[in-house]
Amino acid sequence: MTMFITFEGPEGAGKSTNIAYLAKSLEKAGYSVLVTREPGGTVLSEKIRELLINPDFKGMAVDTELLLVFAARAEHLNQVILPALKRGQVVLCDRFTDATYAYQGGGRGIDETKIALLENLVQGSLRPDLVFLFDLDADIGLSRVKNSRQGLDRFEQESLDFFEAVRAAYWHRAKQDMKRFRIVNAGQTLEEVQLQLDNYLIEILGYLNA
Amino acid sequence: MTMFITFEGPEGAGKSTNIAYLAKSLEKAGYSVLVTREPGGTVLSEKIRELLINPDFKGMAVDTELLLVFAARAEHLNQVILPALKRGQVVLCDRFTDATYAYQGGGRGIDETKIALLENLVQGSLRPDLVFLFDLDADIGLSRVKNSRQGLDRFEQESLDFFEAVRAAYWHRAKQDMKRFRIVNAGQTLEEVQLQLDNYLIEILGYLNA
Repeated sequence: MTMFITFEGPEGAGKSTNIAYLAKSLEKAGYSVLVTREPGGTVLSEKIRELLINPDFKGMAVDTELLLVFAARAEHLNQVILPALKRGQVVLCDRFTDATYAYQGGGRGIDETKIALLENLVQGSLRPDLVFLFDLDADIGLSRVKNSRQGLDRFEQESLDFFEAVRAAYWHRAKQDMKRFRIVNAGQTLEEVQLQLDNYLIEILGYLNA
Repeated sequence: MTMFITFEGPEGAGKSTNIAYLAKSLEKAGYSVLVTREPGGTVLSEKIRELLINPDFKGMAVDTELLLVFAARAEHLNQVILPALKRGQVVLCDRFTDATYAYQGGGRGIDETKIALLENLVQGSLRPDLVFLFDLDADIGLSRVKNSRQGLDRFEQESLDFFEAVRAAYWHRAKQDMKRFRIVNAGQTLEEVQLQLDNYLIEILGYLNA
């Protein structure tokens, strides 16, 4: 048995650090782990990511953004995620389709049904087994990003309203799908977050051994 | 009244030359004309085109290819084609969604219903008013391309079988939609093709004035 686990939430919520922490814990427990991210995860998908975040394309049509996200995902899924799951690896992915519902749905206002249609087209029946939502006040995430980055990308340049809509959409997803979602309070200290993850690790190992 | 006219067919069929010829004729007749092409037509869409034709991405998943084509189209449509039609320009476009049915449908074997779904998602009810299919034996098109190009792109590197499937899919589209399709025999000399286009010009001017 293996698992496909995704990590959602805004920039500045500490996802990367904590994915690495969880990966290490799973490897210590004897599992082979693949860590990857979206949009990205393959050479082509990273090229698509560059187009998506490039501030030169500020006027990009919302449909273009949505289709580029799913193009990168189709490639990532077919070249990386599905082969890894087939090999029996536990896949930890920094953002997946819930991010599309949050950013393109909540943030850009694209209809949920349009996203669901592309989700089915690209993924068939594949969904993450678990989704860790790193929840953080939109203004805290935004100020963490602004303090740590030199130039802001096309998404990071968005307003506080945008990131509040993203957060609300994430919670809407979580509420619709409590079976898969686990909420991580990303406003805590790193030690506190990792204590919370240690408890979730027990849950994950339980499923992997069940 | 304006028109959205597309030009379909393989590389080597003389589409660009003849689109320029028709554009000039329409301008002489007093119409404002916009000539554009797919995949491409905007800075971002040309970047997407580069990813699509780059031979480095030979192993690209077929869904990725399909979604990139429609991402480029969404951008082109929203930034270029729709504004031009709104301004009253006649739009002449080198390839459009019929090419997706031919190349990704016929050539790659993607199901027609999947393409139709994306067509509706991106275009709503917009369809070309007229489609000129430049029909050419697949082996003639292929040898013209091989003689004129230095390096072959990801599509040009495909086999004769691929281009025969593309041609068959174009004819299938034409048969389904005889109202919009007009067949140009691209195996003729340039003079003969342009004589044929002069006759179609009369048809186009008739519709524009009707």
